[in-house]
Amino acid sequence: QEITENTFGKGLVNVVAKDSSYSLNFAARFQSLFTSNWDSPDNSALENGTSNFLVRRARLKFKGFAYSPKLRYKMELGLSNRDISGASEYTHDAPRYILDAVIKWNFYENFDLWVGQTKLPGNRERIISSGNMQTVDRSLVNSVFNVDREMGVQLHHYFDLGNNVILKEAVALSQGEGRNVTRGNKGGYHFTGRAELFPFGDFDAYSGADFAREETPKLAIGAAYSHNGNAVRTESVDGDYMETETGFYETDIKTFFLDAMMKYRGVTLMAEYADRSADNPIAVDENGLPTGDVVQVGDGFNAQAAYLFKNNFEVVGRYTTIKLDEDITGVGVENQYTLGLSKYLVKHKLKVQTDLSLNDYADNLDNEVMYRLQVDIHF
Amino acid sequence: QEITENTFGKGLVNVVAKDSSYSLNFAARFQSLFTSNWDSPDNSALENGTSNFLVRRARLKFKGFAYSPKLRYKMELGLSNRDISGASEYTHDAPRYILDAVIKWNFYENFDLWVGQTKLPGNRERIISSGNMQTVDRSLVNSVFNVDREMGVQLHHYFDLGNNVILKEAVALSQGEGRNVTRGNKGGYHFTGRAELFPFGDFDAYSGADFAREETPKLAIGAAYSHNGNAVRTESVDGDYMETETGFYETDIKTFFLDAMMKYRGVTLMAEYADRSADNPIAVDENGLPTGDVVQVGDGFNAQAAYLFKNNFEVVGRYTTIKLDEDITGVGVENQYTLGLSKYLVKHKLKVQTDLSLNDYADNLDNEVMYRLQVDIHF
Amino acid sequence: QEITENTFGKGLVNVVAKDSSYSLNFAARFQSLFTSNWDSPDNSALENGTSNFLVRRARLKFKGFAYSPKLRYKMELGLSNRDISGASEYTHDAPRYILDAVIKWNFYENFDLWVGQTKLPGNRERIISSGNMQTVDRSLVNSVFNVDREMGVQLHHYFDLGNNVILKEAVALSQGEGRNVTRGNKGGYHFTGRAELFPFGDFDAYSGADFAREETPKLAIGAAYSHNGNAVRTESVDGDYMETETGFYETDIKTFFLDAMMKYRGVTLMAEYADRSADNPIAVDENGLPTGDVVQVGDGFNAQAAYLFKNNFEVVGRYTTIKLDEDITGVGVENQYTLGLSKYLVKHKLKVQTDLSLNDYADNLDNEVMYRLQVDIHF
Repeated sequence: QEITENTFGKGLVNVVAKDSSYSLNFAARFQSLFTSNWDSPDNSALENGTSNFLVRRARLKFKGFAYSPKLRYKMELGLSNRDISGASEYTHDAPRYILDAVIKWNFYENFDLWVGQTKLPGNRERIISSGNMQTVDRSLVNSVFNVDREMGVQLHHYFDLGNNVILKEAVALSQGEGRNVTRGNKGGYHFTGRAELFPFGDFDAYSGADFAREETPKLAIGAAYSHNGNAVRTESVDGDYMETETGFYETDIKTFFLDAMMKYRGVTLMAEYADRSADNPIAVDENGLPTGDVVQVGDGFNAQAAYLFKNNFEVVGRYTTIKLDEDITGVGVENQYTLGLSKYLVKHKLKVQTDLSLNDYADNLDNEVMYRLQVDIHF
Repeated sequence: QEITENTFGKGLVNVVAKDSSYSLNFAARFQSLFTSNWDSPDNSALENGTSNFLVRRARLKFKGFAYSPKLRYKMELGLSNRDISGASEYTHDAPRYILDAVIKWNFYENFDLWVGQTKLPGNRERIISSGNMQTVDRSLVNSVFNVDREMGVQLHHYFDLGNNVILKEAVALSQGEGRNVTRGNKGGYHFTGRAELFPFGDFDAYSGADFAREETPKLAIGAAYSHNGNAVRTESVDGDYMETETGFYETDIKTFFLDAMMKYRGVTLMAEYADRSADNPIAVDENGLPTGDVVQVGDGFNAQAAYLFKNNFEVVGRYTTIKLDEDITGVGVENQYTLGLSKYLVKHKLKVQTDLSLNDYADNLDNEVMYRLQVDIHF
Repeated sequence: QEITENTFGKGLVNVVAKDSSYSLNFAARFQSLFTSNWDSPDNSALENGTSNFLVRRARLKFKGFAYSPKLRYKMELGLSNRDISGASEYTHDAPRYILDAVIKWNFYENFDLWVGQTKLPGNRERIISSGNMQTVDRSLVNSVFNVDREMGVQLHHYFDLGNNVILKEAVALSQGEGRNVTRGNKGGYHFTGRAELFPFGDFDAYSGADFAREETPKLAIGAAYSHNGNAVRTESVDGDYMETETGFYETDIKTFFLDAMMKYRGVTLMAEYADRSADNPIAVDENGLPTGDVVQVGDGFNAQAAYLFKNNFEVVGRYTTIKLDEDITGVGVENQYTLGLSKYLVKHKLKVQTDLSLNDYADNLDNEVMYRLQVDIHF
């Protein structure tokens, strides 16, 4: 056994070449999750309890630079059954093992060119690593509306506008059917753009919990737009493929995101609005008859507030509402209220998180109560 | 290329942080197996020979401690097709890549809390790593009766009873449907408990071959009990799901194990008895009619004896018998006689193993002869 | 973060034990590929354009020696969806994650015994690592005729014939159904042999591009022969299984390869001829009626020439022709003309490659134009 200067939370292996020809940060991570659900008719009783033990996420991560510090790379692999699910004829009937495989080239001043598969510059919740969340998992707004990861190219840039004001922008060109697709581009291309303003200076706006206990208020406001031309899936880059007898039903799907994060003296506020629309959300076949598939159009809103105590306990409250267009999707309004508690032993690297949620379904569906408890270790 | 102080068999990477914030032992391993089978009607001839080349097992293993030496972790990944098989709707149609993902917290004196997925405290043969066996593979008793790995929580403890007498106990709470299940708990919970007595002092009772050539006889006697409440699979945590038109047939399945290991001057003796019973082993549908599924109730016994020569050759003889309840399962008695030979180049880390087995089936089925040859390398 | 003496392109981790008990070279690699295709009726227009972004290959590689420098090992894992595709009942319905898992024992002088799964000693293009190619991908000759990887044993040897003349030979015994098969050997065994002459001294004949800028002409001429006894798949070790009502149609399939590589002052020439024949290529059932499966018999030829400029740009031209027996397979002649350009930033370890191909199909099928652009990073 050898001694390393590296410490917990900085990767399992963390080296840089003496000749500056490469660096490597290799990390592993896994989450153990316990979930329990009950129906709650009339909010008066808990019935039909179910439970689930899960290795929710498990990952191997490689990142660093290669050849030159201006050329960074990242490869992230999903290991858990939830991480790698989604095999289909579009993915060569193979599990979707690769999350990220991307190189990022700082080719000129503030410009970075990204090539490969990674997260698109969509909504903030999605961009925040699942390992850096203040809650047990992302909100329903993210599940329903996010634009996930895709293979393609991205251009990232930032402006320093002076007076501590920073503007960051990114645009992406990708296929539009989601990650790990091997069967080529269906329909048209997918354009995504995001701009984000930091009016009071830069800060870590892609990680939950104000560990820095910012002395002055920090704010980030972002807007993102995804135009998925001739999209063929019901949730733009996810959901069912809208197949017809002769191919695919295609329609332009647009998703708009507006989000913000604020951190100040242990308080973190985060809010996110998402809206999906489609030119013709109801898929039809060659004869103009509905195929049964419909684009999940509608909007959603999530807001959460948290306070990090000195002892690294954090409480968080979250309100989420999803309003799909009921005439089209047949799905009524869903509201979710969540109260969470986290204990950060080593920030996000070793933590225990728990939350209790009430799902309030319109249309007289039974409401639902969900309890979750999670342990996360991240080297 | 750099020089490492580490040596073969102690992991590919084996480091501890200078600040004692973590350690890592990263290892890889693979087994190449050749198998040949023949039918042997009337034990008089060999017919219908078949053969199989296989990468039988291939693994990546990460273990060590994190944050504090009191918090240990282990993640083990299966890579071979045999390791990762078993994709089904219950595993998100994804391969079962993760074997272990567990943290072990020594929260108080002799008490350890385990959270995540790992082997349950069931029979000894199963707990012995497949890399530390004296035989090419585990016995039929293990294949038919073991309770494998599951996600959940375990509590481990040991008593030092004085006079070199040690008692180790463990209890586990899990889902009851086996490893990597993502679709939640079906039926009830699974409780497993194991107690083990070391009357003549502690020793390595979970590894085959007496490399230590114990000067005094060492003995471990264990008993384990698994109560899988409202179980839904025919082999408790494995086998077919007993589906009905409206859900699952559920019945309590209990498995009892009694096992022992003895090591002395190069001799290793190991024996194991297993018994599975079920409240109502014959699955029936809503109308009380048999669905065709039956719980594999019955018992089995395995005994093996080995001697390790000074030149690190080892001979092993094994006798196994499986007696499922023929009235219920329709399967007759199976006896297996095995003679094996191992050459340990670097203990279990680099070895060649071979064995010859005769499978003697009751009910006039043709007997079977099996020859196997295996090379195992384990960093 | 620690400092390592290792450099980019020599592995992410590259160590040797002080006691010479093992060494490890651990590397990762991924390729991002953009492909675009058009039909070109009458070679006069480009129509029906399609495109595809792909993580084409992504790999983890472990190699080195263990126990003694005479015992080398290699384990290579495929990660991309294209790498791991091919799950079937013959592979335990599991993805084919393992590419190589092999140990190589230099047991006597120039003799090496290989045990496990790795590439068979077939055609040169296949043996050249996909990471060391001068072109975006291998030729059609390789795709149609190669004998891929299998589990089994190989014996490798070389003669030093004096005067700088070297002869290398290898023979292999394997199952004949391709890699990662778990369901045992179908039909008979597969014998492969290869001999290769280096008349002007040894050189790197298994890597594209003459980075060494050989001062004197270097040449390697190889011939390989594969005899797949009672083979059951239409492309010998690949393609459809030729199933019948009661089992498999079996026929001996033979593949012959002749190949050469020459390097001199930046010029690389490579050529390859392949021919597949079968005793009875048309699969028939128990009653002698055709099942619809046919062995893909025929031959193919590939030739390519490249020049590496001083600035590490390389141009390559390639001509490929595939002539399957049209009477049997129903497939007409296909010619492919490719022009490629590579920029090697760090030899094959970091490179950008692009090519343009014209596929000329006989039988009046529309010709096809294909454009590809690839970035490859290999630690």
